[in-house]
Amino acid sequence: MKNPILVPEFRDLIKRKKFKIIKSFLDDQHPKEIAEYLGFLEPDEIWKILNLVDEYIGAEIFVYIDIDVQVRMMSGAFRNNIRKLLQQMSHDDRADLFQHLDRDIVNRLLLLLPPKDRADIINLTSYRKETCGAMMTTDFATLLEDDSVEVAIKKIRKDAPGKETIYYIYVTDGAGMLVGFVSLRKLILSRPKQKVGNIMKRDVIFAHVDDDQENAANMIEDYDLIALPVVDEEGKIAGIITYDDAIDIIREEQTEDMEKLMAISGGPEQESYLNVSSYTHFKKRVSWVIILAMMQFVSGFIIQGFTETLQNFIILAYYMPLLNSTGGNTGSQSATMVIRALALNELTFRDMFRVVKKELVVSLMISASVGLMVFLRVFVFTSGGGDIPAGLTVARVAYMLAAALSVQVIWATILGALVPLVATRFRIDPAVVSSPAIATLVDIGGIAIYFTTAKIILGI
Amino acid sequence: MKNPILVPEFRDLIKRKKFKIIKSFLDDQHPKEIAEYLGFLEPDEIWKILNLVDEYIGAEIFVYIDIDVQVRMMSGAFRNNIRKLLQQMSHDDRADLFQHLDRDIVNRLLLLLPPKDRADIINLTSYRKETCGAMMTTDFATLLEDDSVEVAIKKIRKDAPGKETIYYIYVTDGAGMLVGFVSLRKLILSRPKQKVGNIMKRDVIFAHVDDDQENAANMIEDYDLIALPVVDEEGKIAGIITYDDAIDIIREEQTEDMEKLMAISGGPEQESYLNVSSYTHFKKRVSWVIILAMMQFVSGFIIQGFTETLQNFIILAYYMPLLNSTGGNTGSQSATMVIRALALNELTFRDMFRVVKKELVVSLMISASVGLMVFLRVFVFTSGGGDIPAGLTVARVAYMLAAALSVQVIWATILGALVPLVATRFRIDPAVVSSPAIATLVDIGGIAIYFTTAKIILGI
Repeated sequence: MKNPILVPEFRDLIKRKKFKIIKSFLDDQHPKEIAEYLGFLEPDEIWKILNLVDEYIGAEIFVYIDIDVQVRMMSGAFRNNIRKLLQQMSHDDRADLFQHLDRDIVNRLLLLLPPKDRADIINLTSYRKETCGAMMTTDFATLLEDDSVEVAIKKIRKDAPGKETIYYIYVTDGAGMLVGFVSLRKLILSRPKQKVGNIMKRDVIFAHVDDDQENAANMIEDYDLIALPVVDEEGKIAGIITYDDAIDIIREEQTEDMEKLMAISGGPEQESYLNVSSYTHFKKRVSWVIILAMMQFVSGFIIQGFTETLQNFIILAYYMPLLNSTGGNTGSQSATMVIRALALNELTFRDMFRVVKKELVVSLMISASVGLMVFLRVFVFTSGGGDIPAGLTVARVAYMLAAALSVQVIWATILGALVPLVATRFRIDPAVVSSPAIATLVDIGGIAIYFTTAKIILGI
Repeated sequence: MKNPILVPEFRDLIKRKKFKIIKSFLDDQHPKEIAEYLGFLEPDEIWKILNLVDEYIGAEIFVYIDIDVQVRMMSGAFRNNIRKLLQQMSHDDRADLFQHLDRDIVNRLLLLLPPKDRADIINLTSYRKETCGAMMTTDFATLLEDDSVEVAIKKIRKDAPGKETIYYIYVTDGAGMLVGFVSLRKLILSRPKQKVGNIMKRDVIFAHVDDDQENAANMIEDYDLIALPVVDEEGKIAGIITYDDAIDIIREEQTEDMEKLMAISGGPEQESYLNVSSYTHFKKRVSWVIILAMMQFVSGFIIQGFTETLQNFIILAYYMPLLNSTGGNTGSQSATMVIRALALNELTFRDMFRVVKKELVVSLMISASVGLMVFLRVFVFTSGGGDIPAGLTVARVAYMLAAALSVQVIWATILGALVPLVATRFRIDPAVVSSPAIATLVDIGGIAIYFTTAKIILGI
């Protein structure tokens, strides 16, 4: 907040009913900043402030207020205020708000509204979550092919206050079918008598109401669009998704990908970390923890098979965590690189051979580095005493550990890169194959590698 | 690509010089789609195609072509084409291209351009990487306070073809100082005789040339802006960053966060996965691998301290990977949740107590689930024979493992949540404390927990 006024002063002004001063302060603030001040007030105080500004600015401020405060503001007795606000709000924000209200409040509020708005809310809240239909807004601007540029600009001027954007305008035929697109920039640059049909783009980029919202966000990103039209089954324009919605979708997706990568299931929550119940947190995490723990019983079986080796060379146990964790780390690294490259469309399954080749080279370099480090550490700092079994030299043990670690790094790196690639081949989201799952696979193979290497090199 | 024409057909049309057909095909395609076709051609063929369309469309198509093809197109003999294209390009895209060219080509191309464009390129390429100065473009539209709306619209119409956006227009005084902002929407809705100074917003949201580009992206996201002005030290407007740049920054940041989380250092590369050299991949990964491996020597010391216990109860070794990996998984999960909540400003260090309380409850639930699972598994499937040392029952061993695992889960979950919180307290990016680093800390403590629990419960 750049403005010097402070929240306590602001509350004080409201208590002393200095509404003129408040209004002059509000006039030059961004709606988001005003909403930050209002967040500290009670619903009835907020309504008083919103009444000081133009209706459409009031609606802009309102959407920046926290959703739980918005909900509380809907259950008060401010029928007139609520009606005016709901009619001014962006249609998508309004539908979102209704999704958060209790059924009886929804029914009460719907009755306040004219039939057109009522139908719009019911329509927008009917789409399945995370589809373009659920994300889009219906307050978009349209023109007809036969409109002249002059008429078009007049129409837009008249429509502008109620539209989400007037920078991208969609052209429909008489039946509402999407036939073209024209930007306000193009309109302004065209001669007044030209027909919209002659200056519009016919090859419009669009999405369907049932498409995943991520597809829409990707199209907006790829084509640098301000808005993307969404059409229904018949090809009629049903709504638009704007660039700011695309940013929100990309952020949400980001959280989802990170959680998947760390073996957290169920997708991101609407609520913030502290507001999500402990039980929900538990549910999101426990399944992978149990599954991966069960997989580790296999490691147990493998170690059991080497009981005798281990009993004779108890020093092998000391370095088990080092082997396991280095394998897990290098596997996670290569998996992350490949998952990210797949998400950014830099790779496909057909690049498998090139990926393996690259990861092989990288893992050889890493295994040489970490192998050398371990060799020196063990060779220099291990006393020849009790830990080294009779008949073996420190150098031989150090060499064995370095060799096992090197093989483990190579195995882990290649496996980490291959698992997400193979997943895409079978149309599984590569991010679902979480990094802990790869680390567990690496562990199981790694233990076999470790004891086998020990048997070979130490000659047991 | 929605269009039915195929790339081989397209190449064939070029060979047979059917430029009329090609032009009619290009006319209604999006520049991005045209660029996809052109990607398959040689530089001189691409120049031929670009000559078929309007200069400004040619520039739009060009920026969607892969950067390495763009670079190759600059070294040919097409001086006139190159000059026209460079003058048409968005100033930020042009500066980006120059960053990729060899010094001698840069010098040769700069000489082709008029002094103004030359100065612009030198200016834009002089800012430090990842600052707003490096990201911004200089082709923004400005007005003066004294301009009437009528004059303003005339000016914009004249300027439009060369500007990145005309939807947000910045108002400057005679000296170029940023004094206000007006949207094209507002201009269109205002009366022709009104002064821009009377309809503009004075409290403009802006960034400084030296600010981190992430700040700019966050402002664009928070305030739903189409463009954000960037000012220099004196307060003069130096450029703008547009919403599509913000999306690119957010994507880049996303890759960076994921790589940090998986212990990959150095930040995202400009090149794609396969184009980054193996040595660069190696450098990004090896340091954390070595550091974490060194930390695991501590685990070795701890196990060494329990050599006798381990030799008497070799069964303890079988379950070491299970203990370690479950600890690592639960620690990574809580760390991911907290890092993400910190990034989304849902948490601050002051919430530490509430976070610990929540994670304690969650970890108790997880440890009860996974503890019970392990108890049943060991109790039901372990034969009373060789593995269970004399004097102990299977139930006692199963109980010991379940108890150790439960303590490990609680310790790991709390530690995973605390480390990123404490990192923010010391102004360290919480994501730098990568998940593998937390898993390693968990491992070291976990091994001590494991053997201590064993000693207590088994009474050794």
